[in-house]
Amino acid sequence: MAVYTDVGDEALAAFLGDYALGELVAFRGIAEGVENSNFSLRTSSGDFILTLYEKRVDPAELPWFLGLMRHLAARGVTCPQPIAGRDGEALRELAGRPAAITSFLPGVWPRRVRPEHCRPLGEALARLHLAGADYEAERPNALGPQSWRPLLDKSRATGDRLQPGLIAELDAALDRILPNWPENLPRGQIHADLFPDNVFFLRSSGGRDLSGLIDFYFACTDLLAYDLAVCLNAWCFEPDLAFNVTKARLMLGGYETLRKLGRDERDALPVLCQGAAIRFLLTRLFDWVHTPEGALVTRKDPLDYLRRLRFFLAAEGPGALGL
Amino acid sequence: MAVYTDVGDEALAAFLGDYALGELVAFRGIAEGVENSNFSLRTSSGDFILTLYEKRVDPAELPWFLGLMRHLAARGVTCPQPIAGRDGEALRELAGRPAAITSFLPGVWPRRVRPEHCRPLGEALARLHLAGADYEAERPNALGPQSWRPLLDKSRATGDRLQPGLIAELDAALDRILPNWPENLPRGQIHADLFPDNVFFLRSSGGRDLSGLIDFYFACTDLLAYDLAVCLNAWCFEPDLAFNVTKARLMLGGYETLRKLGRDERDALPVLCQGAAIRFLLTRLFDWVHTPEGALVTRKDPLDYLRRLRFFLAAEGPGALGL
Repeated sequence: MAVYTDVGDEALAAFLGDYALGELVAFRGIAEGVENSNFSLRTSSGDFILTLYEKRVDPAELPWFLGLMRHLAARGVTCPQPIAGRDGEALRELAGRPAAITSFLPGVWPRRVRPEHCRPLGEALARLHLAGADYEAERPNALGPQSWRPLLDKSRATGDRLQPGLIAELDAALDRILPNWPENLPRGQIHADLFPDNVFFLRSSGGRDLSGLIDFYFACTDLLAYDLAVCLNAWCFEPDLAFNVTKARLMLGGYETLRKLGRDERDALPVLCQGAAIRFLLTRLFDWVHTPEGALVTRKDPLDYLRRLRFFLAAEGPGALGL
Repeated sequence: MAVYTDVGDEALAAFLGDYALGELVAFRGIAEGVENSNFSLRTSSGDFILTLYEKRVDPAELPWFLGLMRHLAARGVTCPQPIAGRDGEALRELAGRPAAITSFLPGVWPRRVRPEHCRPLGEALARLHLAGADYEAERPNALGPQSWRPLLDKSRATGDRLQPGLIAELDAALDRILPNWPENLPRGQIHADLFPDNVFFLRSSGGRDLSGLIDFYFACTDLLAYDLAVCLNAWCFEPDLAFNVTKARLMLGGYETLRKLGRDERDALPVLCQGAAIRFLLTRLFDWVHTPEGALVTRKDPLDYLRRLRFFLAAEGPGALGL
């Protein structure tokens, strides 16, 4: 749920005047997207999304994100397309925020992941990795392994209130993960946050068609297999937090129809999964510790990711993941 | 900002199976509407709004609201139309909540009210009152004058924390308003919450066209002129809380092109405006007192309505309102 910045009438009218999109027909805030303010925008020429970038996004990085989305779409990855104004610029300012209009993607994100979603997800992820190969500008992963100990330090004082012994357990996990972190795997542009609410599907007669990927504002240049590790965390656990190996196999199988994993990448999957689990655990823990008690916003439970972390720490090699 | 209840895939698919609306194309939460969960829903047959009714709405009253919307639309008032399922029923259940699909209205609500909005608003309000005349079922106004003292009592213990002396000032205001409350003015179906975010406009070549009214879930059977008093509160104050008599005259003028006010209604406008101001003040105060400190939801400032209340208490007769 998120509209942090609202947009005045005159400001919106002036903003739209810079585009050749026709007359404004409808404009409503969207209750999705945690980081930015999103609006569905209809004009006489179609449907669009208007995004105002809020403080968690560095304005200096926006050209990289928008450029990646444009690059990927030109190579067949369905993702929001930045719409340029009359002057050719897609990145503008509105209500004191950097702002962009992107194309509207049809589809619905899966509230409950089913096995049928996982093969198309794997295929789409591989397509993204291949399409990104010749996008040359790099963006370091600000939430990569170098960030995890400093992030833990910011929750150190009060994190154990969530669960006694939590901070010590996370220190021990980092002691094990960080020295094992692989350095020489294939790298490229990754999404890095491909959770179910960022993947749209349409129901077709044959099953479920993936209709697009959204929210590229954590995308960065990092190990390609780490993106798979994020998806194994985000898509392959049941509500009771049991790992569903069928979903994992379908996802990997879909991925490998387009891009074969190297042996080194397969071997690294357990530690990459441990790393992805602790990355989401640490940002959730940070939000938990720094959101006031009683606040009515939904704080995602960091302990969901502790269960995943423990599972992946116990897995000895990709075989233990069933892969 | 509000999506209180999310909807699972299978539940949504099963729900849509009860309608003849074709295939699901898109489904997104809307960050507007304070009381219920709203989703924009696109199917192969068009655009709709799906509403899940949350706890502040009494399910037993939903047939009255939906019936009123149907009745008004049949008489030319543009408002959301309940869409019936294959069995003819518009009111169903989804995710454990009463739920209904209504038609999508184009338009944008005015973030900043301009004089051009006010005449069409007055006309639309009169049209609503005339069209409601033969909707015979009554719904008492649960937030009418009988409710104000009990509502104040619920904030009595801590309300002065917002502003010292507030509770005594509100007691004195009620002592003055309640004995003067008019009883014998024309009655009928009123919207009772026609704030700018419930009125959509489209920009046309000639100016601004009112494209529809939404959110009828405070509608009730009460004094018609009270609806005007709500709108005078909600539309005719500038950001610095100065009363804009030009806007008020345009609104009244628009209203009277379709329905002439009686002399008794005009004379009662000041006390009706006082009552409307204290009604919104009291519900905002209640929310203020009962929302935890530090919560990240927006609490509307009750004191905005204290300023309005004082203005209307100082107005001697409709002349002092410039009317």
